[in-house]
Amino acid sequence: MILYGRNPVREALRGRRARGVGEVWATDSAAREPWLRGHAVEVRPAAAIANRCGSQAHQGVCAEAGPYPYVAAAELLAGEDPLIVALDQVQDPQNLGSICRTAECAGATGVAIPERRAVEVTPAVCKASAGAVEHLRVARVRNVADLLAQARRAGCWCYGARAGPGSVPYGQPDYNGGVVVVLGSEGRGLRPRVASSCDQLIALPLRGRVGSLGVAAAAAAILYRVIEDRRSAS
Amino acid sequence: MILYGRNPVREALRGRRARGVGEVWATDSAAREPWLRGHAVEVRPAAAIANRCGSQAHQGVCAEAGPYPYVAAAELLAGEDPLIVALDQVQDPQNLGSICRTAECAGATGVAIPERRAVEVTPAVCKASAGAVEHLRVARVRNVADLLAQARRAGCWCYGARAGPGSVPYGQPDYNGGVVVVLGSEGRGLRPRVASSCDQLIALPLRGRVGSLGVAAAAAAILYRVIEDRRSAS
Repeated sequence: MILYGRNPVREALRGRRARGVGEVWATDSAAREPWLRGHAVEVRPAAAIANRCGSQAHQGVCAEAGPYPYVAAAELLAGEDPLIVALDQVQDPQNLGSICRTAECAGATGVAIPERRAVEVTPAVCKASAGAVEHLRVARVRNVADLLAQARRAGCWCYGARAGPGSVPYGQPDYNGGVVVVLGSEGRGLRPRVASSCDQLIALPLRGRVGSLGVAAAAAAILYRVIEDRRSAS
Repeated sequence: MILYGRNPVREALRGRRARGVGEVWATDSAAREPWLRGHAVEVRPAAAIANRCGSQAHQGVCAEAGPYPYVAAAELLAGEDPLIVALDQVQDPQNLGSICRTAECAGATGVAIPERRAVEVTPAVCKASAGAVEHLRVARVRNVADLLAQARRAGCWCYGARAGPGSVPYGQPDYNGGVVVVLGSEGRGLRPRVASSCDQLIALPLRGRVGSLGVAAAAAAILYRVIEDRRSAS
């Protein structure tokens, strides 16, 4: 795939993941950026770069890269007290990218996404994540409910974000130990089968007239609550 | 301006703000949605709607609306213990929309944006906010540093989000009373003059290799921390 934008290309070059980065194309001015020193760069006009990556959001740089190096779900669950974000049918590349960036910043173990009916880690997602996906582990799973069952067997607690009856305030649980935070799709939220595979449903307070937070904002509010909780206990 | 998308048009029709909503155009199927009942709707093909609003993201509906009804900064500061989000040079409509949606959901008093070098409340921002801007108060101010001075005179504490030296962990302050949360632009963060106009700089923990959170994710993590703090004290 062709990565584009400064952060995605820089982080792909910095990342220690099994993802080869091939030829970098940059405009004359982008080619002089210090993080490109020591890399072979072809200087090309902006129009050629736009043409190669198929986006106007390239910021003067693009690069060929191998397929995104997904990990197995078992790898996310292998460590001690993992903190995993599982996404059920998130469709929007901006949202997936933003959640991956937040997860990486919060020091989460990784993100799990379904193989079907969901966006995968495309160049647009790499861009929206500011390159964070090059450092974060992302697993594609056949089925989110099965992943949650597997996580529970591994000793994790699964918290599904859903406002409404049956939920506790998101500040109430003790988030120490292995934790999976499960977030649903932009329009419909968690599907019933996924919600019923969670140990507990958690809700962020909603005090306005608009009925729901964006999924990326909910992820940020919950993940930072979780890591504060884990920090204060440790 | 021409609003587009289901949430923006629905919330503009529901909103009690001084913003006239004129002719609604909808596709045959969108025109049957229950929230359009009782409103005059012109049924038009999708192509005509895309043409009128200039976007493919219209979801089958668009509507003419008056200019966005900004409020004066003084109106944000007038109530008891306001909670205000001030944005310094945020450029991206997605980010402004997302922050407005989060602010509205969190029950914030309003959002302040600068008149210059910043995105304003365009139809794309209305869309990204899921219509929340129709219920939230947004002020345009000539200068963010002056707004912070005005807020401090009104008894507010101004917290600037910035990682690095001189910042305290964001969970440390007591966020009761009047609060302004100040967030900087996507690339550069808070400008020095704005940072020095804050009472305190606050930082979210960053545990990854990517150096910064997205501004909309930072807004969500901080605002939800603030309202939890205010709630537990009240």
